[in-house]
Amino acid sequence: MIYVVFVEPETPGNIGFLARTMKNFGLSQLVLINPCELEHETYYQSMHAREIIYNRQEYDSLPEFLKTEGIDYVVGTTGTAGGSYNIPRIAITPENLSQSLNVKGHIALLFGREGDGLTNQELEMCDVVVSIPTHESYPILNITHAAAIIFYELFKNEKQYPVEDLDEASLEEKQGLIDYVDDVLDKLDYPPHKKKNASLAFKRMVGRAFISGREAHTLKGMFRRIRDRIN
Amino acid sequence: MIYVVFVEPETPGNIGFLARTMKNFGLSQLVLINPCELEHETYYQSMHAREIIYNRQEYDSLPEFLKTEGIDYVVGTTGTAGGSYNIPRIAITPENLSQSLNVKGHIALLFGREGDGLTNQELEMCDVVVSIPTHESYPILNITHAAAIIFYELFKNEKQYPVEDLDEASLEEKQGLIDYVDDVLDKLDYPPHKKKNASLAFKRMVGRAFISGREAHTLKGMFRRIRDRIN
Repeated sequence: MIYVVFVEPETPGNIGFLARTMKNFGLSQLVLINPCELEHETYYQSMHAREIIYNRQEYDSLPEFLKTEGIDYVVGTTGTAGGSYNIPRIAITPENLSQSLNVKGHIALLFGREGDGLTNQELEMCDVVVSIPTHESYPILNITHAAAIIFYELFKNEKQYPVEDLDEASLEEKQGLIDYVDDVLDKLDYPPHKKKNASLAFKRMVGRAFISGREAHTLKGMFRRIRDRIN
Repeated sequence: MIYVVFVEPETPGNIGFLARTMKNFGLSQLVLINPCELEHETYYQSMHAREIIYNRQEYDSLPEFLKTEGIDYVVGTTGTAGGSYNIPRIAITPENLSQSLNVKGHIALLFGREGDGLTNQELEMCDVVVSIPTHESYPILNITHAAAIIFYELFKNEKQYPVEDLDEASLEEKQGLIDYVDDVLDKLDYPPHKKKNASLAFKRMVGRAFISGREAHTLKGMFRRIRDRIN
């Protein structure tokens, strides 16, 4: 199940364009976070996808949505990959995403504000960030055109679903692994900023790797042993 | 040289959206055939691609353009492939087009009217017709979203464009990280089969995660520290 989440949309027409491209590629669940007022333009641009607008969900905040719907996996989108982070994030391409996504879970695909995209704080909630390769002379796509390209890539690979049972680790299992690593880091006398960077790098690697429950368990065992040896 | 040809556009804003997505994917030559009046909305939606609007060419008819510019190869686009033509055509996918197009010639990429697309007569002037795979429930894309997807596919395969450098860790950098982990595992008094499983799980996670060179470096630092503490 893929939720298409538009975070604080500012232009009523764009919500309609987004709904239309969703339906073009077989997606149906639209979520708006703290949106602008919907207007005639919203319905007009959705054309034959009005039911997606009618059936939308609205939430006041992103964390509230993620919690209420029990989202397992959060995919962010950005036009400026690896810009100004402490550890620049590798954005994966829409193709990478399409090849690796396991649609059995509850997946949220986030699109940010037209002007400013997703905030760093929102990007930190993401397990993976997708960026569309563009020409350097003008890398910023209109939001609904970016969405169309990502939906198209997901749709292209849909025939391959369901992928071999990937038994992807739950959010809890992944968090358990990350907690062990943080525990080990606490014992390493790292300078705080280095510790934070290492923790973040590990967390992001886990987020992007689509690890299985069994792999999470095995890696947790490794870090438990490391912790016990250091103690 | 690729000419992007919008045949009888009806909505001023769409000309702007088209110009913007052209620039996003490194295209610059826009041709309008018998267009509607350009309005403020045209320039507004083109955002930072206004020069494409200023530098556009206009012709009264498609045959006149094809002849005057000495076009070698005409690519049509349609949302309803092989539907109701006199001579049913097999449409190729944007991927097929991208793989087979030789951009050394003078190529025209035709997009039709928002309402009715290209006429049968115009499609007969095409050497090939492209259609985007879509969900059967709503196969008709907005024209500029369709264009964005086709430009994106062309851009993906265009080796002459400098694609954004994602700084993915090299095989060597990843192997360096994996070696450190194996080193740590050797010191943990694991039963051999458990050690092998943990090593494999870590290796697979790294393989799937598209980590950056910098992340590999950070994580290596973490495991070096762990090793030193255990020693």
